[in-house]
Amino acid sequence: MESSWTRSTVSTLLSELKDRGVVLDLDTKSNGFGRPSQLLSLNPETGRCAGVLLGLGEIRIVICDLAHSLLSDVWFEMPRDYAPEAAAKQIEANLARECASLGFAIPDLLGVGLAISAPLSYDGRVLNGDVLPTWGGVNLAALFSDYLDCPIHAENESHCGALAEMTWGAAIGEKDFVLFKFDLGVGGAIVRDGVVQRGFTGSAAEFGHLVLDPNGALCRCGNRGCLQTFVGGYHLVRHAEEFGGHPVTIDQFVEHARDGRLGYRRLIADAADKAGWGMGIAATILNPPLFVIVGKLAAIGEAFLTPMERSFLRHTLQPPDQLIETTRPRFVVGKFLGNDDTVLGAVALVLHQHGRVTGFSARN
Amino acid sequence: MESSWTRSTVSTLLSELKDRGVVLDLDTKSNGFGRPSQLLSLNPETGRCAGVLLGLGEIRIVICDLAHSLLSDVWFEMPRDYAPEAAAKQIEANLARECASLGFAIPDLLGVGLAISAPLSYDGRVLNGDVLPTWGGVNLAALFSDYLDCPIHAENESHCGALAEMTWGAAIGEKDFVLFKFDLGVGGAIVRDGVVQRGFTGSAAEFGHLVLDPNGALCRCGNRGCLQTFVGGYHLVRHAEEFGGHPVTIDQFVEHARDGRLGYRRLIADAADKAGWGMGIAATILNPPLFVIVGKLAAIGEAFLTPMERSFLRHTLQPPDQLIETTRPRFVVGKFLGNDDTVLGAVALVLHQHGRVTGFSARN
Repeated sequence: MESSWTRSTVSTLLSELKDRGVVLDLDTKSNGFGRPSQLLSLNPETGRCAGVLLGLGEIRIVICDLAHSLLSDVWFEMPRDYAPEAAAKQIEANLARECASLGFAIPDLLGVGLAISAPLSYDGRVLNGDVLPTWGGVNLAALFSDYLDCPIHAENESHCGALAEMTWGAAIGEKDFVLFKFDLGVGGAIVRDGVVQRGFTGSAAEFGHLVLDPNGALCRCGNRGCLQTFVGGYHLVRHAEEFGGHPVTIDQFVEHARDGRLGYRRLIADAADKAGWGMGIAATILNPPLFVIVGKLAAIGEAFLTPMERSFLRHTLQPPDQLIETTRPRFVVGKFLGNDDTVLGAVALVLHQHGRVTGFSARN
Repeated sequence: MESSWTRSTVSTLLSELKDRGVVLDLDTKSNGFGRPSQLLSLNPETGRCAGVLLGLGEIRIVICDLAHSLLSDVWFEMPRDYAPEAAAKQIEANLARECASLGFAIPDLLGVGLAISAPLSYDGRVLNGDVLPTWGGVNLAALFSDYLDCPIHAENESHCGALAEMTWGAAIGEKDFVLFKFDLGVGGAIVRDGVVQRGFTGSAAEFGHLVLDPNGALCRCGNRGCLQTFVGGYHLVRHAEEFGGHPVTIDQFVEHARDGRLGYRRLIADAADKAGWGMGIAATILNPPLFVIVGKLAAIGEAFLTPMERSFLRHTLQPPDQLIETTRPRFVVGKFLGNDDTVLGAVALVLHQHGRVTGFSARN
């Protein structure tokens, strides 16, 4: 407590917090003279929050407490193009059941954070139906408020990923970085002075839709030749299936790529070349000190990362030779390379509302 | 004055400022009751500043006062790849002569602002020798401090352009915008919350070096297929000269393009297509509410701007149909389409140091 409160004021406030169960007495500790100190702790039970990932053909729900302990983690499949109301109903049912098994109810939650693979407006609307076409234009906050009786917070999944890396992962203490997520699709986040930049309408950092070839393959966003038509896991897996003649999951794809299997080497090198090009473009615009790379493709390791960095340098403005070493951005691989980042980031969204993590930029 | 000073304190401070010549008595004004008010003015003579444009084969120097009046404006040619020391000497001689003709000397200046066609580090070093190869790595602030006995401020010319538009032009009152300058080269600036964003090393917003075609023409920056190899006025003029078989200046080029002369139509349409692509990429990353377009090519008007906007929409992430109108950024043409913006922006750099205009982002 930075302000200069008197001992008696602090004592009164603490009693109040203890009466409400927010603060717990842990232990007393004596340093050998004077009154022994009272060790206190936040009561994790007063701050449970849920994170929900609205995925492609799947939904995942986790419940955490304020101590960041995972209390529950459920996952269920959905039809590929599931309707918003159907999802809200299923989430309500699953969340109510999980809460009940932990001995409380949905209204006892501090809040529910929703992560979705789409940019969101400042009032909670889905700005693009790229990954989930049935969700374009839907107001997430309004929809879920009808089903879940607690505060709702919603964000783009890659923005949640940046929050997760800042809260628990590779970007703890980093105030300025650009995150690229190479997964089934390609997403990203721009963090400036500890704040995720949302832009004017909420769709900043949509790196998956950097147009690299205006005559390229049609992208789900309606344009052609977007970065994710070259690097998105969906597209790579489809190529691998054509090449091998049998179905391949994204996890198998990553494994084969890591093993350097024939065909995969070139596929990954070509994808890494485009990934580095996209990152080079981002650096020419943003000039960040650090790139954090996440998503399943990052788990391929050197076979993806080395040609990506090489390509990066060929596609971004170079300083004079004598300054190259001091001006080149750092590259780090994130902690969350599956989709834990999105659902944990959704939890972090709720924690943020309670001042537990750094936040999001306000609308311009 | 926001703090609650007493009348006598204000009176004492004002007397002091009047004694030093910073504040002038203008007139007294009575509102019919009580003591008449004393109208005051800042004395423009106490705040003269100079702006210098280090151009390609030319240098321009202006002197302004605090009332933003232009007192002097000189221009002289230089050899194409002029050396930094030669430029500093010539600038010293010209600036000393102009100051003398106005009745003062260089040390009486509030400061000199330098604008150069290159990104600059936070300590004043030229980060790229793209336009002026002899200047790569040179520390502008250190060099000019040896020749000019007054404070030196230096910035990238497009960043200066943004300051000029914010101070005197089309972006007065705009807190968030992206500026694209289409001139002999292509440059830009990102303004967020009233502050020009410089990035980690000072080279943010180098839009001219967005790589659109990794197999394209070699760019002066050392990479291939940068935006300015397609849209830079130098390249367009060269094509026009090849097509017409005789030399063409950039001003003639703009005139012929505006007239829709044969060959120019297609050349401008193709350039506009690439310009819109680059702006689309910037919007996908930054999601700004406003684009300010400056530079000589903007003076071509609709023949350039209309296909540019059309291309922009094909190369940026589109929101769902019902949100297109409310989320589309505005496009405005700047006030300064010649190179007044850079030299006036260099003046604004000095004014900024004295709290007269909004500023630049601090290093991360």
